[in-house]
Amino acid sequence: MRPLIAIDWGTSSLRGARIGTGGQVLESCEFARGILTVPPGQFETVFNEHFSDWMQAPDALCLISGMAGSRQGWQEAPYCPCPAGFTELGQHLRWLKQNRIALVPGLSCMGEDALNTPDVMRGEEVQIFGALQLAGRDSATLVLPGTHSKWVQVQSGRVTHFQTCMTGEVYGLLSQHSILGKTLDLTGAFEEVAFLQGVDHSQQAGSLLKHLFAVRTLGLFDRVPAKALPSFLSGLLIGEELRHPTGSKLQGPVIVIGSDTLTLRYTLALQHLGMACQSRGAEATWAGLFALACAS
Amino acid sequence: MRPLIAIDWGTSSLRGARIGTGGQVLESCEFARGILTVPPGQFETVFNEHFSDWMQAPDALCLISGMAGSRQGWQEAPYCPCPAGFTELGQHLRWLKQNRIALVPGLSCMGEDALNTPDVMRGEEVQIFGALQLAGRDSATLVLPGTHSKWVQVQSGRVTHFQTCMTGEVYGLLSQHSILGKTLDLTGAFEEVAFLQGVDHSQQAGSLLKHLFAVRTLGLFDRVPAKALPSFLSGLLIGEELRHPTGSKLQGPVIVIGSDTLTLRYTLALQHLGMACQSRGAEATWAGLFALACAS
Repeated sequence: MRPLIAIDWGTSSLRGARIGTGGQVLESCEFARGILTVPPGQFETVFNEHFSDWMQAPDALCLISGMAGSRQGWQEAPYCPCPAGFTELGQHLRWLKQNRIALVPGLSCMGEDALNTPDVMRGEEVQIFGALQLAGRDSATLVLPGTHSKWVQVQSGRVTHFQTCMTGEVYGLLSQHSILGKTLDLTGAFEEVAFLQGVDHSQQAGSLLKHLFAVRTLGLFDRVPAKALPSFLSGLLIGEELRHPTGSKLQGPVIVIGSDTLTLRYTLALQHLGMACQSRGAEATWAGLFALACAS
Repeated sequence: MRPLIAIDWGTSSLRGARIGTGGQVLESCEFARGILTVPPGQFETVFNEHFSDWMQAPDALCLISGMAGSRQGWQEAPYCPCPAGFTELGQHLRWLKQNRIALVPGLSCMGEDALNTPDVMRGEEVQIFGALQLAGRDSATLVLPGTHSKWVQVQSGRVTHFQTCMTGEVYGLLSQHSILGKTLDLTGAFEEVAFLQGVDHSQQAGSLLKHLFAVRTLGLFDRVPAKALPSFLSGLLIGEELRHPTGSKLQGPVIVIGSDTLTLRYTLALQHLGMACQSRGAEATWAGLFALACAS
């Protein structure tokens, strides 16, 4: 096994870790150099700026996941169609420097609806495989909350299906740009009671488009304090996402992968609705890239 | 019966009509003087500016519906709780000049959920009663599409329940401020095929938060042209609203009240989903205020 330079190069940040031959994280770093900040043709320069020291090791292998492999990134590593596991990811690596630096492809899957609506992910696939390694499982339902949450089914080590929910983005739009923003006070701390009231409210009959209006009227009628309304809205949207968690049924405890803030909320909501879960943070990315390096 | 000056004074516009003793509209006008443009204390001045001529008739009665009766308006005409019909509206008129000028109250209703979530309307109640008069019905399910759509149940001439869906506002947010805005081209004309594809897509299993992402991927994979995506998104949201149209079942053909643009879309979607409907425009407001004048 060679020393691994693991990189997660996303839309808004660039993270790296130097991984020992046994998989341990020796050193890690993060820069505000997401792909949106990199002019076309400058990816190699930015990479060298931050990682040339680590790349000195003559036998170092570097794997880069995330949006750096998109059409707007360093080079395009075309989506790998589902079902896909480590083997398929390894086969579709896009080598930038032979046997030294490779981009990890994202995954695509086709919906079973009338339009065969496609879905895509890029960066999450590595976290998924990493979390499964850490959990010692090869089949699971996973959720990766965020701007665009991903719900993922893995069977026998391969992603069979996934779908994207725009939960985080819709929360941002509603709290910042909608009429709901007029009554809610975003300076308030997270309030668990209001959050779970939102989760409960979302489980009722009727559409999210209706449930959302409660944020306004409960505020207007002084039934929920302005500082608790952001937590209520968050519960409403996460609860809506959990109302229809995935195309097929949950496989064992749901694995939640993300930042502490988000995994806390999803854990609270899942448990409140009677669904078992366990959570993972940034370590999933490094474990995933390490496992991929071992397999490829 | 006295001559009626019917006024609909909303958030963004001020509309008026001079109504004959038989209910016919003799003259109508519209000004960009919604309540948001009127400084506190200036409502009477603005009213006189536009309607003093019509008010010359010694026996003229003026009824004003809409946001002019809200806390931010001329004076507050407190919400009239449901169930409510003409009688209750008439009893709760807020007289500004005894027997000459009155504000029509809005309606409120309390949800049957755990939080007894309140809902409110102001201005729509007059359109509802007007449309029922024009249709010769005293029980119906109605929808008033818009920024905040209202779904209304009327039984024996009284509004028994209603609920608000934030459909129009969510459409605006998503098309203007979200990542979906990057792939859709708002300059395109309305496209019925794409609209109905959106309606169909919304009827599938799963959450709106998931269905929305199709707008992005169908665009990215060149499956729906950028100019047709706004119609697809519109169908998706209106379809979601129609998935759960109202707390109880539909009573006869749904009455759709609104602008031509919106009633066309709702009519298409309702018929596509096998629900009969009929539509009404601005005439509903004048008919409603006339009927209220007759009853009070």
